Amino acid sequence: MSRPAEITAFAPATVANLGPGLDVLGLALAAPGDRVTARYAEGPGVTIAKVTGDGGALPLDPATNTAGIAATATLARAGIATGVSLTLIKGMPIGSGLGSSAASAAAAAYAVNLLIGSPLRKVELVGPCLEAEAAVSGRHADNVAAALLGGLILVRSIDPLDLVRLPVPDGLVVVVVTPKMELSTRAARAALPKDVPLGSLVRNTAQIAAFVSACYSGDLALLGRSMTDAVATPARTPLIPGCAEVIEAALDAGALGSSISGAGPSIFALCRSERSAAEVAAGMVAAFAANGLSADAVVSPADCPGARRA
Amino acid sequence: MSRPAEITAFAPATVANLGPGLDVLGLALAAPGDRVTARYAEGPGVTIAKVTGDGGALPLDPATNTAGIAATATLARAGIATGVSLTLIKGMPIGSGLGSSAASAAAAAYAVNLLIGSPLRKVELVGPCLEAEAAVSGRHADNVAAALLGGLILVRSIDPLDLVRLPVPDGLVVVVVTPKMELSTRAARAALPKDVPLGSLVRNTAQIAAFVSACYSGDLALLGRSMTDAVATPARTPLIPGCAEVIEAALDAGALGSSISGAGPSIFALCRSERSAAEVAAGMVAAFAANGLSADAVVSPADCPGARRA
Repeated sequence: MSRPAEITAFAPATVANLGPGLDVLGLALAAPGDRVTARYAEGPGVTIAKVTGDGGALPLDPATNTAGIAATATLARAGIATGVSLTLIKGMPIGSGLGSSAASAAAAAYAVNLLIGSPLRKVELVGPCLEAEAAVSGRHADNVAAALLGGLILVRSIDPLDLVRLPVPDGLVVVVVTPKMELSTRAARAALPKDVPLGSLVRNTAQIAAFVSACYSGDLALLGRSMTDAVATPARTPLIPGCAEVIEAALDAGALGSSISGAGPSIFALCRSERSAAEVAAGMVAAFAANGLSADAVVSPADCPGARRA
Repeated sequence: MSRPAEITAFAPATVANLGPGLDVLGLALAAPGDRVTARYAEGPGVTIAKVTGDGGALPLDPATNTAGIAATATLARAGIATGVSLTLIKGMPIGSGLGSSAASAAAAAYAVNLLIGSPLRKVELVGPCLEAEAAVSGRHADNVAAALLGGLILVRSIDPLDLVRLPVPDGLVVVVVTPKMELSTRAARAALPKDVPLGSLVRNTAQIAAFVSACYSGDLALLGRSMTDAVATPARTPLIPGCAEVIEAALDAGALGSSISGAGPSIFALCRSERSAAEVAAGMVAAFAANGLSADAVVSPADCPGARRA
């Protein structure tokens, strides 16, 4: 079987943190997502031929674009020195708390690995994507792991990499509402405290433990009340106009729980059903509007696949 | 049916924290434990007739003895003003990290509730026991919840009280080794940092999330590697001679994981089988001996009942 001359892969947006899981929980959405096409090219090394959908914001330099970094690291990990050219179609806003950099990295790593004959297993692409993430938004694997592997992923450890797939309760639906503003991941990370009170540690460990229990038991009420966070969410709330009101609107509309998606400004909610999710999305968008921000809502099943051929 | 004139209840020792679960995870042992006999007496209020097995260390004043405080709070919660006299037989050392104060409180609350016709459900006795615990060792429910309810309990929240029973993997065995030294719970709590680095929060939330996942999935290797703790264990290790060596000895002998039991100085280990547990216990006792401390080992199934009639 001859190898294809080019491969296009899709990797989805992801919701990281999920309340108490700062840097350790990530969940894949159905959409939006990024598409990367990888082709053999004059080598050595990776070049980026074109980026669209980014409004000109992203660099074509493969050393600073996360798709380029992940592609280069994938070739290095596979031990293959060939030239590869990438085309990236951004399908989501940058700096929105939806794991934009991770989606580009995951799509690129997946496409390149497939192009060169799949020498690496999917989980082995997390390392290359983590290198990309570290270069632009901090060394955390929650977005890249979920963007690659799909579903709900717990990052137990980065060094060594140790990932745990958590079960997603049947029928669980995610709403993500993205206001039309940009919040740089670096600024959102800078807002985090360097130290936290011991009491906040106790509260967040209790919350994430209950969240994981609820994923297994399917106790949706427990899942919802386990989503509050004593650390990152309070620190980032002031960076997002209307943040507290949007979360309250989600709960008022019937969401199980709601919090900031990743570094924000997107806010997500978990819901019992598609029908509930539609009401929750409307309430959240209205609450952003009341704070002077127009916002787009996405509704997605909570158990979606990760990076794949497109 | 006439009510009995006296009731004797037993409540077991408990292992709290279990590594990353400071103040939020507790697990009941088969033994040792405390016995409390409750009898109707001239009232009003609770008196303590006798305490044995404590070497004279515990007060007979019902306002400062945890059995007395829990008994009084149980009567108050039930809205019953009767005189009750208690006899307490301590079956475990005090200040050993085995939840001694919690066992006395749980046995007393359980005995009193049964004596007055069980107006309260078992879970409603956690509040009265928490009052007792708060008076002597800090307001945390991990020991009292496990001592009352048995098994492995997650304390998601104290206010309001929200407990989650976690499944215990089949065949899991606990070893607890108690050196002959006393470490006051107050001193062990004073050793805890007031603030912790954000990185320690991320590590402990990842660890407890993986620990809970492993309880459900039965992945014992994951359970073991999820037991390290970045916060309480390093802070308390210097208070216990040989602590690091005992934990290392447990792992060398085949334990899945090992850490300080509650506030210490007891150290526990989780093991795959009774046979493994025997080897682990011997290794831990030898490591304490090498540090000049004689120590007693207890081996118990990890899924044991809580307070009950004795």
